[in-house]
Amino acid sequence: MRITIIGSGNVATHLAAAFKNAGHSIVQVYSRNLHSASLLAYHVGAEAIDKTENIRPDTDIYILAIKDDAIASFVSRLSTHNKLIAHTSGAVGLQEILKSTPNAGVFYPLQTFSKTKEVNFREVPLCIDGADEAITKTLERLARDISNNVYRVNSAQRKVLHLAAVFACNFTNHLYNIGEQLLAGSDMGFDMLRPLIAETADKIKKHSPGGVQTGPAMRNDEQTMQTHLQMLNGKPDLQEIYTRLSQDIIKNQNTRNWNK
Amino acid sequence: MRITIIGSGNVATHLAAAFKNAGHSIVQVYSRNLHSASLLAYHVGAEAIDKTENIRPDTDIYILAIKDDAIASFVSRLSTHNKLIAHTSGAVGLQEILKSTPNAGVFYPLQTFSKTKEVNFREVPLCIDGADEAITKTLERLARDISNNVYRVNSAQRKVLHLAAVFACNFTNHLYNIGEQLLAGSDMGFDMLRPLIAETADKIKKHSPGGVQTGPAMRNDEQTMQTHLQMLNGKPDLQEIYTRLSQDIIKNQNTRNWNK
Repeated sequence: MRITIIGSGNVATHLAAAFKNAGHSIVQVYSRNLHSASLLAYHVGAEAIDKTENIRPDTDIYILAIKDDAIASFVSRLSTHNKLIAHTSGAVGLQEILKSTPNAGVFYPLQTFSKTKEVNFREVPLCIDGADEAITKTLERLARDISNNVYRVNSAQRKVLHLAAVFACNFTNHLYNIGEQLLAGSDMGFDMLRPLIAETADKIKKHSPGGVQTGPAMRNDEQTMQTHLQMLNGKPDLQEIYTRLSQDIIKNQNTRNWNK
Repeated sequence: MRITIIGSGNVATHLAAAFKNAGHSIVQVYSRNLHSASLLAYHVGAEAIDKTENIRPDTDIYILAIKDDAIASFVSRLSTHNKLIAHTSGAVGLQEILKSTPNAGVFYPLQTFSKTKEVNFREVPLCIDGADEAITKTLERLARDISNNVYRVNSAQRKVLHLAAVFACNFTNHLYNIGEQLLAGSDMGFDMLRPLIAETADKIKKHSPGGVQTGPAMRNDEQTMQTHLQMLNGKPDLQEIYTRLSQDIIKNQNTRNWNK
């Protein structure tokens, strides 16, 4: 397919490279920042542009990898070209862009991307939705060209996925951050925690996280939890986070037992 | 060395196997549960016992891999043999066992172990402490036989490590659990989140977590956070966890900016 990429951030960069590697042709890369557009465009053999009026109509699909609040205005602008438009957001509903065009879909990669880190795109879950079955099938074909994990996901489900990803990815990274800060306060380096973090993530590749939960809250070890809260004296935010997560672990554990 | 293992749980199992593989001799495995002791003892070529009076004095070291609240009484009992005693707990101070014997140390593996999952022990951080320099050196030598990551860690630091591990491992696993529950509520499987979780953990192998934080809170994206809290209506515990962690991310982000 001939693909136009709107955006030049992390998602745009990884998607464009994956499309290119799968044999598709990247027509143009648009970004408000011409330097950023040029870097990506050069990499995938496309034309770099920084003015919306220069976005060409001779393409098969516009892939929007831009901020959520910029999507509606781009869809409205591009809809005059009567080509397929797909956004890549976890949070924006399909209904919201159908107001401007019926030729629309969603191409949402459920992954966290960094520009400097390679990702095996074949393992990235791609969540597809379309205004009609033909659009959905077109987007599914395109998705299968670059990934082995293609799912049909409606707008309501996609929002839940996005929320679940905030817990399992964004919040998890912040817990790593808290761990690093606690160690730094006692002259220890984050390297000491890295193997534990790797193993914790590795464990759930084959298990359900509920089945491998460990720690003081899981054992209902009141004494250790009290000691930990005392150690966090002067850090009320961390005390709150510690208490809330521990209580939720205990509550889950009880529910699990009741259900047995 | 001739090593006696007190305990037959996850830590005992992985430690005994690592010692055996490194060429040490496991003399006995003690557990209140003879079946459990026998399983491990058979695996490492040791004698299985379930009565403390059968613990033999002809050994070089007793490794205690038992519950925290059982450590003191075992140390007191074993101290009559005048052999080196090391416990493997993150939370029990060295001072607490020095009351019974001067021949004591700590051999704390900072890792989460499951009986059914292999761990590359050479990567497990081993945190060593001893009542004197000779004991510390003996335990360090033993530690280096089975791991490349050996650290000297005093009791205060070890307690901080244990606390940091609760955040980075136990609480992280619970966030995975929350992610799975949210998906299940919308007919989606945990497989969809697994690649994201793997990548989130993989990212911090070479980066500091503070430098790779992403998500609505990091962007201060009020609208998405409000939407997420609405989606969690009827789940006040998850709303609290969402709010607390988001606020802490925002606060950290501001501190970081102020420090620039």
